[in-house]
Amino acid sequence: MRCVRCGSEGARYALSFARAAFCRECYVSRFERKLRSTVLKYGMHRVMRRTLVAVSGGKDSVALLAGLKRAFGDLDLTALYIDLGIPNYSERSEEVVRRVCERLGVPLMVHELKSSEGVSIPELAVGRFRRKPCAVCGTVKRHVLNRIAVENGFDTVATGHNLDDTVEVLFELYRRGLLEEAARLRPVLLGNGANLANRVKPLFEMTDEEDLYYVDALELEHVDSWCPLVRGSRMVSRKQLVLEIESKIPGFRHTLLKAHVKRVLPLLDAAVPRVETRPCKSCGQPTTSDVCAYCRTVTGLKARAPGPGG
Amino acid sequence: MRCVRCGSEGARYALSFARAAFCRECYVSRFERKLRSTVLKYGMHRVMRRTLVAVSGGKDSVALLAGLKRAFGDLDLTALYIDLGIPNYSERSEEVVRRVCERLGVPLMVHELKSSEGVSIPELAVGRFRRKPCAVCGTVKRHVLNRIAVENGFDTVATGHNLDDTVEVLFELYRRGLLEEAARLRPVLLGNGANLANRVKPLFEMTDEEDLYYVDALELEHVDSWCPLVRGSRMVSRKQLVLEIESKIPGFRHTLLKAHVKRVLPLLDAAVPRVETRPCKSCGQPTTSDVCAYCRTVTGLKARAPGPGG
Repeated sequence: MRCVRCGSEGARYALSFARAAFCRECYVSRFERKLRSTVLKYGMHRVMRRTLVAVSGGKDSVALLAGLKRAFGDLDLTALYIDLGIPNYSERSEEVVRRVCERLGVPLMVHELKSSEGVSIPELAVGRFRRKPCAVCGTVKRHVLNRIAVENGFDTVATGHNLDDTVEVLFELYRRGLLEEAARLRPVLLGNGANLANRVKPLFEMTDEEDLYYVDALELEHVDSWCPLVRGSRMVSRKQLVLEIESKIPGFRHTLLKAHVKRVLPLLDAAVPRVETRPCKSCGQPTTSDVCAYCRTVTGLKARAPGPGG
Repeated sequence: MRCVRCGSEGARYALSFARAAFCRECYVSRFERKLRSTVLKYGMHRVMRRTLVAVSGGKDSVALLAGLKRAFGDLDLTALYIDLGIPNYSERSEEVVRRVCERLGVPLMVHELKSSEGVSIPELAVGRFRRKPCAVCGTVKRHVLNRIAVENGFDTVATGHNLDDTVEVLFELYRRGLLEEAARLRPVLLGNGANLANRVKPLFEMTDEEDLYYVDALELEHVDSWCPLVRGSRMVSRKQLVLEIESKIPGFRHTLLKAHVKRVLPLLDAAVPRVETRPCKSCGQPTTSDVCAYCRTVTGLKARAPGPGG
């Protein structure tokens, strides 16, 4: 195949949704131009004074860190790796993240869940959370990410959520009519300038494929296996279903995302009342109830867990 | 298989979404009980003083007419057949409708499009409408149905739209973020007491399968072929896609419909401003623009069509 940009032979990056293939160099410049355009379009750069980038070592977060660093030379970026304490996975991922940060010249913070919070994800994924470790893990990561950002003076947290992630969740929320929750699915969520940092998703318009091609084109190391706890998660089968729908309705994912941003969100902004938050009585982070989901989960578990003596 | 209701052998009506099979008698009584419950739940009976039932001769409208007649002995029902002028289809359908109405003892009105409006559907499905005859046909039927109801003192129009019809359209509207249009998809649409009749969809919660089983169980004649103009319509492939999703997410259609009614519609009622209508300058029926869609379509076509002399 020929590169649609420069015409050279051996265009190895063929985007399935766009009927276009690129050589390595043209693909990298295309990705970075698109990333820059997304960041500017949604005004992310205006809130990214000091940015904490959540990096798990997967293709998306590695693409995010590399893309931001390369496309915006002047951004103040720090990577955060959260050690979730997952055997045969977390240690290996941390090593990958260390090497990537070193190569990119981005400072790295590591937060070990077990020593800081007292519990690891496998210890939390028990009892009523046994069948949904990803839900617990999401709650914990959101909390820890925000707390570390606030405590260390970062105004903004950047995460690697991409188009496929958003579409998968949107599909589920629309199916169940949970429009209030869908209203929170956006590329930029502003914080409150105090105990809630801004959140931005610079890969909001990139597919899984685009992120993978980018780390491949830059020969960036990344963790390419699923977390061992994801097995049985509905997320995986829903992503598969979305791809099957896309094969029947070409452009399905892009249409759904664009419609959500352009049509649904403005409508919901008018309809869904702004949720009032107050400080969690336990940790002080913003929550809609007395005690936040993180504290309910972690504290509840600690109370049940056996002491060091067994 | 045994009937889940009476335990008799030879239960031939197996509902694919409910893991339940019924014998003929139990299926008929189940269908009619569910129909009655839908009508009462949405308050349809409160607006059905004199009801004009749109009957095309297909399984849904035949099930609707028979179901209303049998489940509500005291309703004042009149069937309306609109002769769309489709060769090899409309004549045959009319004969079926005549026989069904005779058997059920329901008076029938027949409205011939060609002699009353001056054009048939095949004549309208030309030019820019060539590829979407179903859209034109829908516009014409909605208009004619309402006009005949208003002119003849029917307060309410009943149509055979079922769950699969609604889910197919909902899926399309959600995908494209057209929530204002989705807000009009409901079991009851109240008229204005003047030039707009109430509209009710008593089969709103029935699947294609449930309607088909009902006419089969009652041995009611019906047209079981698609309209010849439907070929190439996206509606058919979208219904197919919805069934494929249902095979991956059991209950998908019922969940989506229920979520729409219980969660989305109340939210949209608050968000979507009520559309103000005014009388069409040409026909006087309510419209959101100066001239209604029906008049734009039909009048535009008549102007272009050659006169009787060729």
